[in-house]
Amino acid sequence: MQRMRTIRVLLVVALFPLPLLAQETMQIRSRVLNETRTAIVHLPDAYAQSKTAAYPVLYMLDGGTNHRIAAAATSFLGVYGTIPELIVVAIPNTNRTRDFTPNDGAPKFLQFLTTELAPRIEQRYRTRPMRVLAGHSLTALFTVWAMTRKPDAFFGWIALDPSLWWNDGAVLKELNARKDIRHFVMIRSGESQRRRGDFPFTNLVLPDESHGSLPYRGMYEALKLLFADYAIDAATVREVDAHYETLSREYGYRVSVPDMAWFSVLYRNEEQQKWNEAALALERLAAQSPHHPELADERARLEELRKKQ
Amino acid sequence: MQRMRTIRVLLVVALFPLPLLAQETMQIRSRVLNETRTAIVHLPDAYAQSKTAAYPVLYMLDGGTNHRIAAAATSFLGVYGTIPELIVVAIPNTNRTRDFTPNDGAPKFLQFLTTELAPRIEQRYRTRPMRVLAGHSLTALFTVWAMTRKPDAFFGWIALDPSLWWNDGAVLKELNARKDIRHFVMIRSGESQRRRGDFPFTNLVLPDESHGSLPYRGMYEALKLLFADYAIDAATVREVDAHYETLSREYGYRVSVPDMAWFSVLYRNEEQQKWNEAALALERLAAQSPHHPELADERARLEELRKKQ
Repeated sequence: MQRMRTIRVLLVVALFPLPLLAQETMQIRSRVLNETRTAIVHLPDAYAQSKTAAYPVLYMLDGGTNHRIAAAATSFLGVYGTIPELIVVAIPNTNRTRDFTPNDGAPKFLQFLTTELAPRIEQRYRTRPMRVLAGHSLTALFTVWAMTRKPDAFFGWIALDPSLWWNDGAVLKELNARKDIRHFVMIRSGESQRRRGDFPFTNLVLPDESHGSLPYRGMYEALKLLFADYAIDAATVREVDAHYETLSREYGYRVSVPDMAWFSVLYRNEEQQKWNEAALALERLAAQSPHHPELADERARLEELRKKQ
Repeated sequence: MQRMRTIRVLLVVALFPLPLLAQETMQIRSRVLNETRTAIVHLPDAYAQSKTAAYPVLYMLDGGTNHRIAAAATSFLGVYGTIPELIVVAIPNTNRTRDFTPNDGAPKFLQFLTTELAPRIEQRYRTRPMRVLAGHSLTALFTVWAMTRKPDAFFGWIALDPSLWWNDGAVLKELNARKDIRHFVMIRSGESQRRRGDFPFTNLVLPDESHGSLPYRGMYEALKLLFADYAIDAATVREVDAHYETLSREYGYRVSVPDMAWFSVLYRNEEQQKWNEAALALERLAAQSPHHPELADERARLEELRKKQ
């Protein structure tokens, strides 16, 4: 039965109408950096289908190389309701070493991010007050350093194989001294693990990946870990409501229930022949997404199952 | 030493100039299907930087959901020289069940792919005579079925958790009867493996993934397996030349050497203080990519290392 449910959920996703290629390149003149910077913005497929839906924002460093990875991982996991759908803002480099080395330009780059880029993004797009910062290697070292300096600037922090060996482990020492680390995920390559032991915070080792090959799988695993509390395999509509209320307090904004949560309750209750609960889940889906392409079919199907019984 | 080399290669990639967002949506009126279909085309970042460079083409089914995954995986692996850089053509669904079920519309959809879409793509873009077809679930069943019907229509075939249980395993039986399977990769979820045993052709199980979650990691692993013979960790320029000559015969077109192959020979020979071979690799890189942003730095670096010794 579990299998049937999975396949049905998959088909629902495959039937969605053509996504818009909502992607744009933004130029921003930075006073702090005294140069013009570029941001590659990927919007969720559903962004243009609504005038009100708003999204948290993932800021992806080394954005010239990694913008597609961030967009693919967030979009895939977001559409399935594994993580919230996110706007991706990827920032290509101009002078990587200058911007991301803590004793060089990092303070300025952090200022650029928080006082110039993020406000501009939040003005231009429909955003939620939740920002996530992600980097790899040197830009992951920057991410960890930024967390120690401005822990409130971002909600979540993703570090893919951070160069923690920098400056005799200076940033690592600061990281270990902090007692209040939350929403921080580190993903490490097999290569990196062989050089160091374990760390006392959320981290995962991908033994098959090297330092350079880490970002593709790393972003996927990091997002799942960072938002591990997001999805729920609930039995009832009430459980779904309670879960996303709790999450709203945690995330600091009114988190909307992903459609997939209603499908999940629907299918589970159909399997258990709990028709009233199934119908309730379908009503909630209809109230939330009245134009969902699967609504009519699901209604007919529920009616049919009910009659068969 | 291995580690230093990896980090240098990584930096080379991170320093590349801003990629173009070369992505477009194409409409194609199909006589065979009697409807207008859409193709989402992602071009390699380097596409616009050349007037002559040509690329093999990956056709991704369930393209509305999976175009970003295909673009991210091919672009990431392509830039590092793990696989050839590819043009991705993703085809969103209109009527998934009709198009991909072998005893329904599949013959027509295959005809559309081979006689309408592919020729149009090859006319409009700079392509190499190498096509790869990829699908997931029902579209992976179609991929396997198409391979049994028209084994010469594509060079490579990727099936992510194909629905081989369809019609009492009819396609599976045909697959097992073929002795000439080449360039076929099947990736399976843990869920799928628990239902069936092993298969007698290239296949990989990802135990942590479910049927629905497979595509993101599946495309990455499939591309690495399909092009497992592409990259070479060579010691000499001569080895590189010989490798890509062999590959050219295998692939059926003149395969150009990826820049990363020259960097790899360069770094390895620098480490071993084989200066002539290092300089030769650098010359070959310069001849091939005269505007590579790292060229001047690498020349200066080699000169310096040579003097130090």
